[in-house]
Amino acid sequence: MKLLRHGPSGSEKPGMLCTDGTIRDLSGVVPDIAGEVLSDAGLARLASLDTAGLPVVALGTRLGPCVGGIGKMICIGLNYSDHAAETGAQVPPEPIIFMKATSAIVGPNDPIHIPRGSDKTDWEVELAFVIGKRAKYVPESEALAHVAGYAVANDVSERAFQTERSGQWTKGKSCDSFGPLGPWLVTRDEVADPQALDLWLKVNGQTMQQGTTRTMVYGVAFLVSYLSQFMTLHPGDVISTGTPPGVGMGMKTPRYLKPGDVVELGVEGLGHQRQDVVADA
Amino acid sequence: MKLLRHGPSGSEKPGMLCTDGTIRDLSGVVPDIAGEVLSDAGLARLASLDTAGLPVVALGTRLGPCVGGIGKMICIGLNYSDHAAETGAQVPPEPIIFMKATSAIVGPNDPIHIPRGSDKTDWEVELAFVIGKRAKYVPESEALAHVAGYAVANDVSERAFQTERSGQWTKGKSCDSFGPLGPWLVTRDEVADPQALDLWLKVNGQTMQQGTTRTMVYGVAFLVSYLSQFMTLHPGDVISTGTPPGVGMGMKTPRYLKPGDVVELGVEGLGHQRQDVVADA
Repeated sequence: MKLLRHGPSGSEKPGMLCTDGTIRDLSGVVPDIAGEVLSDAGLARLASLDTAGLPVVALGTRLGPCVGGIGKMICIGLNYSDHAAETGAQVPPEPIIFMKATSAIVGPNDPIHIPRGSDKTDWEVELAFVIGKRAKYVPESEALAHVAGYAVANDVSERAFQTERSGQWTKGKSCDSFGPLGPWLVTRDEVADPQALDLWLKVNGQTMQQGTTRTMVYGVAFLVSYLSQFMTLHPGDVISTGTPPGVGMGMKTPRYLKPGDVVELGVEGLGHQRQDVVADA
Repeated sequence: MKLLRHGPSGSEKPGMLCTDGTIRDLSGVVPDIAGEVLSDAGLARLASLDTAGLPVVALGTRLGPCVGGIGKMICIGLNYSDHAAETGAQVPPEPIIFMKATSAIVGPNDPIHIPRGSDKTDWEVELAFVIGKRAKYVPESEALAHVAGYAVANDVSERAFQTERSGQWTKGKSCDSFGPLGPWLVTRDEVADPQALDLWLKVNGQTMQQGTTRTMVYGVAFLVSYLSQFMTLHPGDVISTGTPPGVGMGMKTPRYLKPGDVVELGVEGLGHQRQDVVADA
């Protein structure tokens, strides 16, 4: 299934992309794409629906982040060996984790706001996964059963805030609009192998990132297990798994986003996003 | 006012500590100590209540975190000059910020769970403040009007996870139970000067930390303004302002928490916390 949230920011309703290409509203079925709805039982219930009778959502309706009630968004740093190389860093001996404020999370096609004082706003296409079942001290062999599904994320990053403004990356990762998520949550039964997906990102039509999750250093199953050694992962938590090469910071002459730019990105089988870049008011 | 949340973890109800020492239940008045209840209008409404008719909460009822619906918890690193010195670090040229997963937040007297594989779990008494009004690009002169109130926080930290396990402090700050918060949210009208409060922490009755917010490098008003340049602060967001000297890591022979230890801590006028230290199952 491809689950989503539609409507104005802050009052999104649950929905589903049907195989006929229509988006159907799930407001009468579940309160949100969140919490217990993400459990195996919750997803099975949605999968058994006869969607033909559900209201059709009008074309062009805004999509919100594909999951609601996100308790935390954990991001993995330098998780592609070739991306680590382009930033001049070593592949870390164990995953680097940092957090993106959930207030940064927006819909897949909402604008990216360049914060005041920023001149190094950068892009990062990533495979994100969403927890469906509480995970604590989970062995890797059982890890994937705790994943509800997968989504596209753009881990937008202000490089000066991240690395030149006194320690800890959060500062450059948590600006408003720096977490486009969606368009859909693709349930895990539709993703045969999360470690064999192509990813891409374009700026103004020019391909900047082109990679595959095959070169991810720490894969999804490992990450669920690893993170669950440090803290409980709850249904609706989002983990973004790092970016392949091709970020602006890594170019011979670094290139950052400016108002008027258009960013498009996608992950194989998970849909794509499109963001207009605007200056923050 | 001293606002609080009482009852079992995950289903806390709102309450208030009255001047006669009783805790009164606010379930019939507000849904939670969260969101709009934290606004000036919401707090004014609570202040105007005749509390005599409200149900009394039984003595010994568990207290939860004093605020609900916390969107993000931001912590400030090395924000006391004397604490920076004891850890061998310089005072940073601007605030270091990092995030503690909201899943780590617990009640003020809940046990501290030492995670599996930890042998460097440490304490940090801190002054926390809670946002009452949306803050974005706020000047320092208007900053304190965005604060609903203040609370005691223990920024429990696993030092090996924080600094020896591949970059970014979040890993050592976000373990379950590493964020005791409360007992009360003391509204800002009752705190004449947040930069003139004594803080203390004891382990097994022995004073380990004794400080004052007078030696805080970046004060509350500055922090509201500073953080709001990077991201929107929403009602219910919690910011913990850093710890004074006396952490276990800073001792000549570092000393960390072990099962059976008892941690007590407090901030002047904001009440105190007491945590039993237990090994994670």
